[in-house]
Amino acid sequence: MSKQMLGVAASPGIAIGKILILEEENLEYDKNKFEDVDSEKNRLHDALDASKEQLTAIKEKVEREMGSDKAEIFQAHLMVVADPELISAIENKIESEQVNAELALDETVEQFATMFANMDNDYMKERASDIRDVGGRILKNLLGVESVDLAELEEEVVLIAEDLTPSDTAQVDKDKVLGFATKIGGRTSHTAIMARSLELPAVVGVSDILDEVENGKQIIVDGVDGNIIINPSAEELETYETKAQEYQERKKRLAQLKELPGKTEDGHQVELVANIGTPKDVKGALDNGAEGIGLYRSEFLYMDRDSLPTEEEQFESYKEVAEKMEGPVVIRTLDIGGDKELSYLDLPEEMNPFLGYRAIRICLDQVDIFKTQLRAILRASAYGQVKIMYPMISALEQLRAANEILEEVKDDLRSENVEFDENLEVGMMIEVPAAAMIADILAKETDFFSIGTNDLIQYTTATDRMNENISHLYQPFHPALLRLIKRVVEAAHAEGNWAGMCGEMAGDKRLTPYLLGIGLDEFSMSGISIPEVKDNIRNMTLEEAKEIAKKALTFSTAKEVEDYLSDPK
Amino acid sequence: MSKQMLGVAASPGIAIGKILILEEENLEYDKNKFEDVDSEKNRLHDALDASKEQLTAIKEKVEREMGSDKAEIFQAHLMVVADPELISAIENKIESEQVNAELALDETVEQFATMFANMDNDYMKERASDIRDVGGRILKNLLGVESVDLAELEEEVVLIAEDLTPSDTAQVDKDKVLGFATKIGGRTSHTAIMARSLELPAVVGVSDILDEVENGKQIIVDGVDGNIIINPSAEELETYETKAQEYQERKKRLAQLKELPGKTEDGHQVELVANIGTPKDVKGALDNGAEGIGLYRSEFLYMDRDSLPTEEEQFESYKEVAEKMEGPVVIRTLDIGGDKELSYLDLPEEMNPFLGYRAIRICLDQVDIFKTQLRAILRASAYGQVKIMYPMISALEQLRAANEILEEVKDDLRSENVEFDENLEVGMMIEVPAAAMIADILAKETDFFSIGTNDLIQYTTATDRMNENISHLYQPFHPALLRLIKRVVEAAHAEGNWAGMCGEMAGDKRLTPYLLGIGLDEFSMSGISIPEVKDNIRNMTLEEAKEIAKKALTFSTAKEVEDYLSDPK
Repeated sequence: MSKQMLGVAASPGIAIGKILILEEENLEYDKNKFEDVDSEKNRLHDALDASKEQLTAIKEKVEREMGSDKAEIFQAHLMVVADPELISAIENKIESEQVNAELALDETVEQFATMFANMDNDYMKERASDIRDVGGRILKNLLGVESVDLAELEEEVVLIAEDLTPSDTAQVDKDKVLGFATKIGGRTSHTAIMARSLELPAVVGVSDILDEVENGKQIIVDGVDGNIIINPSAEELETYETKAQEYQERKKRLAQLKELPGKTEDGHQVELVANIGTPKDVKGALDNGAEGIGLYRSEFLYMDRDSLPTEEEQFESYKEVAEKMEGPVVIRTLDIGGDKELSYLDLPEEMNPFLGYRAIRICLDQVDIFKTQLRAILRASAYGQVKIMYPMISALEQLRAANEILEEVKDDLRSENVEFDENLEVGMMIEVPAAAMIADILAKETDFFSIGTNDLIQYTTATDRMNENISHLYQPFHPALLRLIKRVVEAAHAEGNWAGMCGEMAGDKRLTPYLLGIGLDEFSMSGISIPEVKDNIRNMTLEEAKEIAKKALTFSTAKEVEDYLSDPK
Repeated sequence: MSKQMLGVAASPGIAIGKILILEEENLEYDKNKFEDVDSEKNRLHDALDASKEQLTAIKEKVEREMGSDKAEIFQAHLMVVADPELISAIENKIESEQVNAELALDETVEQFATMFANMDNDYMKERASDIRDVGGRILKNLLGVESVDLAELEEEVVLIAEDLTPSDTAQVDKDKVLGFATKIGGRTSHTAIMARSLELPAVVGVSDILDEVENGKQIIVDGVDGNIIINPSAEELETYETKAQEYQERKKRLAQLKELPGKTEDGHQVELVANIGTPKDVKGALDNGAEGIGLYRSEFLYMDRDSLPTEEEQFESYKEVAEKMEGPVVIRTLDIGGDKELSYLDLPEEMNPFLGYRAIRICLDQVDIFKTQLRAILRASAYGQVKIMYPMISALEQLRAANEILEEVKDDLRSENVEFDENLEVGMMIEVPAAAMIADILAKETDFFSIGTNDLIQYTTATDRMNENISHLYQPFHPALLRLIKRVVEAAHAEGNWAGMCGEMAGDKRLTPYLLGIGLDEFSMSGISIPEVKDNIRNMTLEEAKEIAKKALTFSTAKEVEDYLSDPK
């Protein structure tokens, strides 16, 4: 009998094939075995060298086959293997506690990983899993355990595992591996990100999967809806083969839209642009047909380092993006605080960081940091269509204060004869309800709005978007949101400004007709969502969209709105 | 030369008189002195007995002179003195560490107080200062130090101190003490609360005061504006004598308004009601002329105990208030979570508690707790004009779910033949921006709104109201707030409902014309604010208020609105 399970759809597509379970290797060792300090240290260094060699090889393979940004993980791993702090901590343990290299390694890695895992920051938490991944590799080399060579599989398989490490996914031979399913992980785990990059179907977080699979049996991994079917029936096989075929055809068709505009059947065109974090994301944006960057999250430049980035470093990054993109590049000024901390800035501990000292609130206090960034952005504006966007504005005074600082910086640049775009547009995020409510007032002193729906939903519904206890109240389809967004777009238009959106809602194709219908001018989203949204736009008329928007505004609850927009008739 | 200082205006009025500095007594002792375990224990118990006697005397004096609710502090102190856990911890320390009673007391008290102070809850933090206050008293009795007897002063003085303990303020002879000024404390500290209750002018949080005062010199304490003047000039004296006289006259005039309605010169009448936490607050509400209770914060019934209050306990409290008040009593259902924790409920730790699992969100999950409360409220509705109000509603589904549970409870009561008010009104707080934005939808399924401005400002501006780093962004006069409030009132009226307000804004007399002008029907505030607001209402016409409201809505920033409303011309 077939067995169905549900997980998190991590990478789209349908895989149908034979199960290969990636078992955990036996990494047990005798904790009391100890030769002497020197030989344990030598063993450690041999294992470190072997790990370095393997990682370099993997990194090169990934760079070749998946692009240099995906190879970064292995650059990070190589840095862990060579980290003098980590190595000397292990050596000290060997020496002071007279233990073998395995135990010293294990305990030190765990200590470092725990430290990172406890940081209140998703990025740092991922670092913990990098460190553990590398620690496992060094341990295997210490113990002489050989891993299954995923690069040399003899037949087509679907991989099933507790979790796949970045090293595992990197070795995957795309001709042999049809897809993945793992017990743990979420949409933003390494496995999920790598699967999307490999364009292999994947479902993660399937909690019972390891109890149900057997090597060689058949499995269906439906990365579109997050379904898993073990031992499918003939009927199920047929259904999913059709689904797989349709998926491929759709994918091919969407790829053909790449060069086409986001224009409705009756000729209303909007801008389809991408959200990025670093210059390396530009390629993915372009591959998906982004016409520009609607949100460049500059804070990534400030993270994962010991000190503030210099003006020159920032300038180079902004310039790189400005040059690579033909269309507009909206750079959001530093948005830290909330869930994003910077170790070197020493921000206060807060009871409610999402309602706290963050983004523009910090920049207007720490003017030097802000000015350095504005200088870098202005200088980059000489190299492309750069626009500046302020985050978290809740009051007109803040907008004015930010603009005043910007004018000072412009004056400085002028007096230094440094070139910048004198017509550069300056806009702001609308993500605080107060700003949405006075959008008409703010529109008079700004060039554009970009609605940040993630935070706007959070504040409007008073619901922390990370809090699982109340996730049912974080409602993108809430009638209040629909109304607020409409107010903002209308307020922008009344002043002749444009209005965009850079939150998750912009990439949700169910909302496309609503947003189109109320007149949104710019849709900014993950590059990967662009083709679907574009396809949606190209298959409706503005008149239809307006009708749908009008109808959507008549409902009283988020569920009614969502039901209607999921299938507007 | 005179010296001016600024502090927090803690209790209104002007005091002019001679300085008496309450110095800290010398409470040093020899840490190494130790007789034997038994005699140290005996000394401890003698000191405990003496403290009990003093506290009982103070408590009786306070009860007699200031009312039984103010005497509660001393009941709490008496419980500390008799707390078997505390006493046995001190005794254990004497025994196990062979130290004298003073040291054992000091360290144990500090340990208990620290534990309370570290709790993330204002109420529990106040407990820490209770414990330290009592600890100081026991220590004085151990050392045989006599305190200054504030009850037996020979001349009129103004008290100056680091801080006044509740015991200090309780002993104050109102004929001799003209006012207070202290170095530490805020508007909600014990000293401030007691000063208001004693109706003595007080300024707290005057950081440099102890460096500047000298016994016997003259001082002015201006509890209206928070000013302190040491060694005032003849001119300053004259100014403040006039101010003091005006204050007294105004107070007398306001007291005469007690029985009069909140009616404008042209006959538009609104309801002026009070916010209370416990039945004991009813007296203060009535003394200030409250026509009803606009917000009965039922959560106080749930705090400071080990388990949930029974239906009977709740019923008694609600009934007591319903019977004491002639007018309406709006009981808000349990509003815990956020900054209000209940030790026995084991709520999850949250990253952003103000955006978390709280109030109706908890009640709709923990239906038993909610039903018990609703039963108690319904039963009490047979004894007065009770209304039910749900907090933190952000979506229509929640209102419907709460109403469904209420209907079930009503059915239960009917089938048990228990009496309740079949026409009882059911309303909700508007404190989440999403609710304000869909007030028209919510108004169709509820009888009234009460706008909770404290939270509404917090969420609308995305500003934690407890966070000092961003307090300038917590703007009650923000144009967005003015607009949201107006929407809510209009939405209520469109359905024939009434709209009230129970946040701080309702008691801010600068906002009275705006709120009156947009049609607010009910103003609920601290009893003490009612006379001022009533006076304000009785000295304007509805037409004037409408004009002011219209004008207030034309401004772009909170500062412009505040400036205008502070002095509307």
